[in-house]
Amino acid sequence: MLNSRHLIDLDHYTLEQIDDILTLAKMIMNKPQYYTDSCHGKVMATLFYEPSTRTQMSFQTAMLRLGGSVIGFDNPVNSSVSKGETLKDTVRVVSNYADIITIRNPYEGAAKAASMYSRVPVINAGDGGHLHPTQTLTDIFTLKETKGTLEHLTVGLCGDLKYGRTVHSLIKTLCRYPGNRFVLISTKELALPQYLKDIIVETGHQFQEIDHLTDAMPLLDVLYMTRIQQERFTSKAAYEQQKGIYVLDAPKLARAKYGLKILHPLPRVDEISQEIDDDPRAEYFNQTEYGMYARMALILHMLDGSTKQLDTIPEGDDKHYCCNPKCITQTEKYLPPAFYCHKDILVCEYCEHAVDRE
Amino acid sequence: MLNSRHLIDLDHYTLEQIDDILTLAKMIMNKPQYYTDSCHGKVMATLFYEPSTRTQMSFQTAMLRLGGSVIGFDNPVNSSVSKGETLKDTVRVVSNYADIITIRNPYEGAAKAASMYSRVPVINAGDGGHLHPTQTLTDIFTLKETKGTLEHLTVGLCGDLKYGRTVHSLIKTLCRYPGNRFVLISTKELALPQYLKDIIVETGHQFQEIDHLTDAMPLLDVLYMTRIQQERFTSKAAYEQQKGIYVLDAPKLARAKYGLKILHPLPRVDEISQEIDDDPRAEYFNQTEYGMYARMALILHMLDGSTKQLDTIPEGDDKHYCCNPKCITQTEKYLPPAFYCHKDILVCEYCEHAVDRE
Amino acid sequence: MLNSRHLIDLDHYTLEQIDDILTLAKMIMNKPQYYTDSCHGKVMATLFYEPSTRTQMSFQTAMLRLGGSVIGFDNPVNSSVSKGETLKDTVRVVSNYADIITIRNPYEGAAKAASMYSRVPVINAGDGGHLHPTQTLTDIFTLKETKGTLEHLTVGLCGDLKYGRTVHSLIKTLCRYPGNRFVLISTKELALPQYLKDIIVETGHQFQEIDHLTDAMPLLDVLYMTRIQQERFTSKAAYEQQKGIYVLDAPKLARAKYGLKILHPLPRVDEISQEIDDDPRAEYFNQTEYGMYARMALILHMLDGSTKQLDTIPEGDDKHYCCNPKCITQTEKYLPPAFYCHKDILVCEYCEHAVDRE
Repeated sequence: MLNSRHLIDLDHYTLEQIDDILTLAKMIMNKPQYYTDSCHGKVMATLFYEPSTRTQMSFQTAMLRLGGSVIGFDNPVNSSVSKGETLKDTVRVVSNYADIITIRNPYEGAAKAASMYSRVPVINAGDGGHLHPTQTLTDIFTLKETKGTLEHLTVGLCGDLKYGRTVHSLIKTLCRYPGNRFVLISTKELALPQYLKDIIVETGHQFQEIDHLTDAMPLLDVLYMTRIQQERFTSKAAYEQQKGIYVLDAPKLARAKYGLKILHPLPRVDEISQEIDDDPRAEYFNQTEYGMYARMALILHMLDGSTKQLDTIPEGDDKHYCCNPKCITQTEKYLPPAFYCHKDILVCEYCEHAVDRE
Repeated sequence: MLNSRHLIDLDHYTLEQIDDILTLAKMIMNKPQYYTDSCHGKVMATLFYEPSTRTQMSFQTAMLRLGGSVIGFDNPVNSSVSKGETLKDTVRVVSNYADIITIRNPYEGAAKAASMYSRVPVINAGDGGHLHPTQTLTDIFTLKETKGTLEHLTVGLCGDLKYGRTVHSLIKTLCRYPGNRFVLISTKELALPQYLKDIIVETGHQFQEIDHLTDAMPLLDVLYMTRIQQERFTSKAAYEQQKGIYVLDAPKLARAKYGLKILHPLPRVDEISQEIDDDPRAEYFNQTEYGMYARMALILHMLDGSTKQLDTIPEGDDKHYCCNPKCITQTEKYLPPAFYCHKDILVCEYCEHAVDRE
Repeated sequence: MLNSRHLIDLDHYTLEQIDDILTLAKMIMNKPQYYTDSCHGKVMATLFYEPSTRTQMSFQTAMLRLGGSVIGFDNPVNSSVSKGETLKDTVRVVSNYADIITIRNPYEGAAKAASMYSRVPVINAGDGGHLHPTQTLTDIFTLKETKGTLEHLTVGLCGDLKYGRTVHSLIKTLCRYPGNRFVLISTKELALPQYLKDIIVETGHQFQEIDHLTDAMPLLDVLYMTRIQQERFTSKAAYEQQKGIYVLDAPKLARAKYGLKILHPLPRVDEISQEIDDDPRAEYFNQTEYGMYARMALILHMLDGSTKQLDTIPEGDDKHYCCNPKCITQTEKYLPPAFYCHKDILVCEYCEHAVDRE
């Protein structure tokens, strides 16, 4: 199942591959002028089935700064999809035009599905609430450059830990490095799912849960802030009452270590007060620049030695089916059902939701 | 009237010009790296007054793979058109910015109209139901490369033969080569128009009409599939009853010659069953790659020796007017009326609809 | 306050800087091939918070013809703005990706606000009804090339002189050169604001007001036409009655000097009759090409020696506030209020509206 020709899930890459990419990203950052023409003559397609200007601009800039060029769309109504075309057909065709494809799609598993029909490498730029691996690559490159290491860090994660896919991916990745501790800062309703707590423990790491950001501040080497959407609270009253607890402002920051680094996947709304934007511990704007270099390195890594080819489509597992309504298999009916076993539970290979065995 | 500075209608090009383009396309396909910088410093504008992501991406890729760059729009509401600007003004201005213009517009004759006010070569990327010459160029390049010839072929055309502009153009172009036979596969309601049957006969070619795709299969060297839109049937019941007859699936394909080549202008919906996508006779995905090379060759051909100039606008024919409601002369009132005689019938030079003589 | 790292208002540039840009523009126009790779490896971001295809294409072409590349958006609904992101955050991030930013925004003062948070040079491509300095640069480059001078010209300005920001900017800029005379041609309702008449007089220039374009024609070296929007008239009857007075047609043009040059910022609707488009005095289409070269020169000028840096944000003036509902400070609340004194009147530094002193 693991196919490092594409980047669907950062977990599919070995630590050695990840380290290679981070090392290359640093080399590019130090001497960008050496890489100005590295992708001369190459074309990237950005297939954005839902708009995400920020992410799309980051990928476009990365490709353009390597001397490549970019085609694509940012709006499903303008695409052939609106004429009823399948994801498969779109990808088959676009992979004839482009040398590498970046795809964002609201359905979970869409990037994996796309990779099955692409003659060129596919990068997952977000498949619904499932994965967003280049954000995680951005996050760990920022950590590595600002903290000097990915090991033995005390990492606070604040906000929506239940639904936040960037939080989940970051925890899973940091659990592959030794000695990290996690401080989980959220309401009970938005606590980290149990399966991720299990991963932390099983990989020999520790976590603690704290209600208030204020209490957590002195402990942290890293603070990863995320937006809490108002809709996530049980009531508007609960939102109004609690939201300040999870807003990072100057008084809370005053309790932090000198070497703290603050990250945020952006866009932020008001969970970080603007008064700390120019504090040297605020790395969330710089993070976007690290992300650009990380994506440049990723593109170079994936194009290196890449040849146009179609993967073999495996036989489908006709005995089971995925009932996650947001799974790409719900809308693209030709996709062969595929599952893997995790702790006696059958999991859909596309969206990674558990399947009830029949 | 024929002006090969622009590509409005493939019929305006001599067979020699077409062959030059196909030969160049093959050379590019064999050694794309030789052409990486052929259009270095050149700019293409893609003026898409109606969205067509597929076509636009094909042109963009072609220009980018030649080392040129691309500007343009894909959405009329974002264009100056929404401020009431004429096509003439838009083209006059954009031809100051760009070295070549690709235009798609829902009105018939729009590309010809645009070419009259452009200082640079104009490519018709679809003018309503009228013409789409680069699709035809794509089709014949695919045929030449996969069948080795454009002569003495038995070509099946299946689906909507009445309204399908790609079918009409392909027939007209193949009638310029000797010895081709046409097998027309459609419902009576969607049969090929009489004037095209006349062209086939007058140019010394043959055709036969067949109701069922199954019956036609064994005869064919080439099968050109098209989408039948449900709205084209007289009733939903008629659609449900008949649609399977025109769906290409494995059982029908089993009756075909070994050397059959299947083409489709895409996007397809369900007129070709996905089960045959990986059959070596299925060329419809490869066809898009042939199309990219054909467009690269076309762009090089048109830019070769091109200088910025405005054509002289001919005097209008004030004695007649075109009553086709989809003709570009209906909305762009400054266009000089122009007609030519075909078999004693006066035909509008823009949309090529017949005019009742006064 | 003046910061020529950015281009917010052409008045912030010295005449020497403007002349340098016009001289460079002419050099590029004469030998564009020398500049094909001048911005190789550089990226421009075009942040268009309201669509303006024409202006965006002009900037894109300028950057592409210098060998640079372009990212950006043309539609606010597709941008992160729709997720509630501030202008500040967007600019902070995009200035990590790009080497230069072009911004268009419906709020007055938005470009200045953007420049405060950008690490790279910012070009104002239109901030509501306030300023559009590259249009003025286009206008004066056209004048200099077609009239040979920016001095001692009699310049007619016709149409909406009350609201037309391009008219206001052009007058202010031409008042920096000696000996120009202005002929103001409009209805009483759309007359030039008094403060601009004051500027004309105070800088030692002259103006006269004329009701009818016909009467003004023989006087003019230059005629700058603008669109009068129907909504500007007091009634539809007034519009219908008066509009012909301000339409330039062949009979009016017959009264003009041989050396007249006609400019228009485009798009035009019907204020210039199409019958004069090919008259050698019509420069409004050529003007767009001059604009492209002027923008190329501007980009080169701004990138020359540019380094990534954040400007220091000044302390806000908490004692006053701007009440212009279209001022960017109304929506971006973190902006420090800032004012300057002009003739004993306090003026907002963002939108330049007068503030009532408290």
